[in-house]
Amino acid sequence: MKKRLSLEAFKSGILKGDRVVLSRAITLVESSLEQDARLASQLVQDILPATGKSIRIGITGVPGVGKSTFIESFGNLLLEKGKKLAVLAIDPSSQKSKGSILGDKTRMKKLSLNKNAFIRPSPAGDTLGGVAAKTREAMLLCEAAGYDVILVETVGVGQSETSVKNMVDFFLLLVLAGAGDELQGIKKGIMEMADGIVINKADGDNLVLAKKAKSTYQNALHLFPLSESGWTPPVSIASSITNFGLDKIWDMISSYEAITLESGFKEKNRSEQRMKWLEENLQFLLIHRFLESPQIQAKLASEKVKVQSGEVSPLSLARELMDLFFKD
Amino acid sequence: MKKRLSLEAFKSGILKGDRVVLSRAITLVESSLEQDARLASQLVQDILPATGKSIRIGITGVPGVGKSTFIESFGNLLLEKGKKLAVLAIDPSSQKSKGSILGDKTRMKKLSLNKNAFIRPSPAGDTLGGVAAKTREAMLLCEAAGYDVILVETVGVGQSETSVKNMVDFFLLLVLAGAGDELQGIKKGIMEMADGIVINKADGDNLVLAKKAKSTYQNALHLFPLSESGWTPPVSIASSITNFGLDKIWDMISSYEAITLESGFKEKNRSEQRMKWLEENLQFLLIHRFLESPQIQAKLASEKVKVQSGEVSPLSLARELMDLFFKD
Repeated sequence: MKKRLSLEAFKSGILKGDRVVLSRAITLVESSLEQDARLASQLVQDILPATGKSIRIGITGVPGVGKSTFIESFGNLLLEKGKKLAVLAIDPSSQKSKGSILGDKTRMKKLSLNKNAFIRPSPAGDTLGGVAAKTREAMLLCEAAGYDVILVETVGVGQSETSVKNMVDFFLLLVLAGAGDELQGIKKGIMEMADGIVINKADGDNLVLAKKAKSTYQNALHLFPLSESGWTPPVSIASSITNFGLDKIWDMISSYEAITLESGFKEKNRSEQRMKWLEENLQFLLIHRFLESPQIQAKLASEKVKVQSGEVSPLSLARELMDLFFKD
Repeated sequence: MKKRLSLEAFKSGILKGDRVVLSRAITLVESSLEQDARLASQLVQDILPATGKSIRIGITGVPGVGKSTFIESFGNLLLEKGKKLAVLAIDPSSQKSKGSILGDKTRMKKLSLNKNAFIRPSPAGDTLGGVAAKTREAMLLCEAAGYDVILVETVGVGQSETSVKNMVDFFLLLVLAGAGDELQGIKKGIMEMADGIVINKADGDNLVLAKKAKSTYQNALHLFPLSESGWTPPVSIASSITNFGLDKIWDMISSYEAITLESGFKEKNRSEQRMKWLEENLQFLLIHRFLESPQIQAKLASEKVKVQSGEVSPLSLARELMDLFFKD
């Protein structure tokens, strides 16, 4: 492994927009070594004044919906508009299959060659809480390095959408037009988190289907209560191949940005997100520390199945474990 | 305060179905005194073999939808069918206004006079995690005392529906027919949790509206993916005044019960719920213990606003607090 940079070297490199230093800083954030974690935490704290100026966009959709191709095309549009773009991914499941670095870079060929785009695959990690925390810190590092649009990509796995929703300003759901069952396969609750829906692959024979799906989705969204921002999520159709509709999606996000800046919702939302992150970090660190204890691990291993079967009450075991942990 | 009963006295009283002992046991479970909590935990553990045989039904709906009247009428129907019924409530918000004991008993006059019905208002508590844990233990005590249908009522506040969903077999959503905006006012995500929807107050002039609303809801439910149980949530219309439709709701729940018993989903679901409860209890006890520390409280009080404003990174503060807590 390369020699660790100093805090100062990390800081000045990032603030200058040095991509190599940025990459190494994200690796630092992702490290599970306690020494790295402390340095990372100090680094994130130090660059904090340079963060927050980007538009943070979450992108989700089931596998096969064309997220990478969309990000490739949409990302290139943003680069043409003079934006600096960082693409992060949060996908705890991808760790199982590995190889996501190569995967992401080949999936987004054009983007990965552009010096104004920075692509970083999903960090390794065995818990969503950990992976999400790392992605969020990576996002802050990218902001400090001057990226003004951050795309955070996620797959519909477990609670990862909620984590992404909690770190972005705008949450975009990609869907496909299908034969009447457009909404099948979308995880419960996802549609209600979206600030905008894009019906992707609206090209060729699909275009007619996509237009139909658009009204289906619009009707469905109508059934949901207004979100706190006062924004009604629009439904757009787009093709990442013909680039049809991509401009409109950027307009959608830009007007959301303008409206929420004006109303103060953007800052209010971010402030609430920070408090949620404090809570989540605390809970994560506490439970992590707890589960690291060999005594706790042994007890859990032997008693868990009794809780599962209903033989031991969850609260009983929880109390026993607490006593064990705090007995000294 | 009355003398505390012994563990044995609690146990035998509950298993005999003694309502006074049951009441006192629930009070014990609700107590925040450490001594009570330990006895309660032991008690719940000891009666565990006698639990689990009931149908656990969650009932939710916005204020004004007529939950109490519905529970009064529906509950009386169940009593007529020879069931023993316990009604519990989980509503963290009700603590602010107090007086829920008197409230609940006057709201459900007929039920509260029947010896086969046991009504218990929402326990006091300042966190949902705590309130939910207490309600769940109360549910187990009621089951051990022979109640074979448990209704857990909740209001759409914060995350309380998720807590209730995680402790019941069947989750029923009550709604009202309105003028075109039937679904307004239902909290995001609630509809997707429901195993059945009842359009309440379907009497008089409302009947026509209710029938219309029924098809609106049916269409909306169609948009959601199939739940893991394979069950498609039906929509019923009912009146708690004329008793119209109540029988059908019981049929709906009974066939859900039969199907999920047969498929094994009921036990699978309960087993998963138990593991969730173990996790939640652990997290609750850990964070509770953490936040009880005067040092942590002082630090949080002075530093929280810096996180809110974005001056201090959430992870930085979380780490500092962890160091403080575990420094000895």
